[in-house]
Amino acid sequence: MPDLPLILVTNDDGFHAPGIVALTKVARTFGRVIKIAPDKPQSGMGHAITINSTLRIQTMEKGDDYEAYQCTGTPVDCVKIALDVILDRKPDLIISGINHGSNASINVIYSGTMSAALEGYIEGIPSIGFSLLDHAHEADFDAASDYAKTVIELALRSKTKNFCLNVNVPKLDLDLIKGMKVCRQAKAKWQEEFDQRQDPSGQDYYWLTGHFMPFDDHEEDTDLWALQNGFVSIVPVNYDLTNYADLKEIESWIN
Amino acid sequence: MPDLPLILVTNDDGFHAPGIVALTKVARTFGRVIKIAPDKPQSGMGHAITINSTLRIQTMEKGDDYEAYQCTGTPVDCVKIALDVILDRKPDLIISGINHGSNASINVIYSGTMSAALEGYIEGIPSIGFSLLDHAHEADFDAASDYAKTVIELALRSKTKNFCLNVNVPKLDLDLIKGMKVCRQAKAKWQEEFDQRQDPSGQDYYWLTGHFMPFDDHEEDTDLWALQNGFVSIVPVNYDLTNYADLKEIESWIN
Repeated sequence: MPDLPLILVTNDDGFHAPGIVALTKVARTFGRVIKIAPDKPQSGMGHAITINSTLRIQTMEKGDDYEAYQCTGTPVDCVKIALDVILDRKPDLIISGINHGSNASINVIYSGTMSAALEGYIEGIPSIGFSLLDHAHEADFDAASDYAKTVIELALRSKTKNFCLNVNVPKLDLDLIKGMKVCRQAKAKWQEEFDQRQDPSGQDYYWLTGHFMPFDDHEEDTDLWALQNGFVSIVPVNYDLTNYADLKEIESWIN
Repeated sequence: MPDLPLILVTNDDGFHAPGIVALTKVARTFGRVIKIAPDKPQSGMGHAITINSTLRIQTMEKGDDYEAYQCTGTPVDCVKIALDVILDRKPDLIISGINHGSNASINVIYSGTMSAALEGYIEGIPSIGFSLLDHAHEADFDAASDYAKTVIELALRSKTKNFCLNVNVPKLDLDLIKGMKVCRQAKAKWQEEFDQRQDPSGQDYYWLTGHFMPFDDHEEDTDLWALQNGFVSIVPVNYDLTNYADLKEIESWIN
């Protein structure tokens, strides 16, 4: 009998977040699972890594088919240290999430959840980030868990082993979700509105707030359209940031 | 006479780093300059933003054609707070750097310097990140400053106002640099080797170390090839992470 799949599970909301508890439960139905997650919330950390300070790992559980660790670093640190220090072999799959809140559209850029998945992809490991469009701690992860199970099964069965997926699940009951849709990342930005306050000594400080501005969510091939219309969105993502469409224009500057 | 260009300068090595001092000097030959930089080094911060704590800004200098600020946040925070709180109009250009060390190839993903530039691009502002392939504090920024001046001039003259450039300068004297080359991002990864140590109480901790593994730097259209062969590399970058080449393959899973 072949070895059971080895699955690495991480997130950016921290070790105890309900989203990673739900995802770990799903992963354990497929094989051996190693969970490693930040010891505190790391939302908005993007692809940050820890180079000016040190990392620590705390073993939370250690069995034959399941191990769990907390790490003091970022989501990308978790993936790096798991691959180099904890795992005895390359995992068959890295999954990150289930994130509490959307990582669709431009959110992918700021997302620790997706950066962890992207780091796995850079390492040549199939990787998937899962997110639910509900920020609440008490969000219902049932439908998202169901779709996570479906996507993980497809990923483990796939002959191609070279992909990174950004999977977002709408905040809907399972029977209201219309299925899955493979999409491109919609164009959008966050319009910042810093909330300016004064501390007791009269010094200004700021909270980052803002609202989401979509630009092409009316286009049916985007992840935002899929989510607004009741589908689970699946965007394959890449770490090659080259803007190939701009190469000629910029070349014309210097020649 | 038209208004002088308004240029926002930032970095990830911190307000006092020689690289941003050099870049600010270049920028001031073109117009009005606002400098805003992190109050401590933020290398490796990727596209991190500060959402679980607050930000503060300290005014360092304030004149008619030059203002300088320190910010407690990440490079992306610096750009966001400058655009919303400090600037009275949209800048004509955002420049980031000059980074102490390479941001070519996969380094772009981990780079605070490039994330600041990318944030400007997301906001619809032409943006450029500059990096010198020399980590030393006492690095010689003369050649990099010279090329920064050339690229800024081309960028300000460009009719297209919709671009983000990743400019890397080899560690060579100006007369040994062969010119500029527009390239794609080379494929590479960092092979981690965590340095495991023990604290005085016998607990393990880890330093992230590693070595750079290029995969296609022999290909002449890559930024690594350009740099290894004495050229300044210019890679236009994008925030659309969609892996368009994978859309059909992933679609075949679910249909």
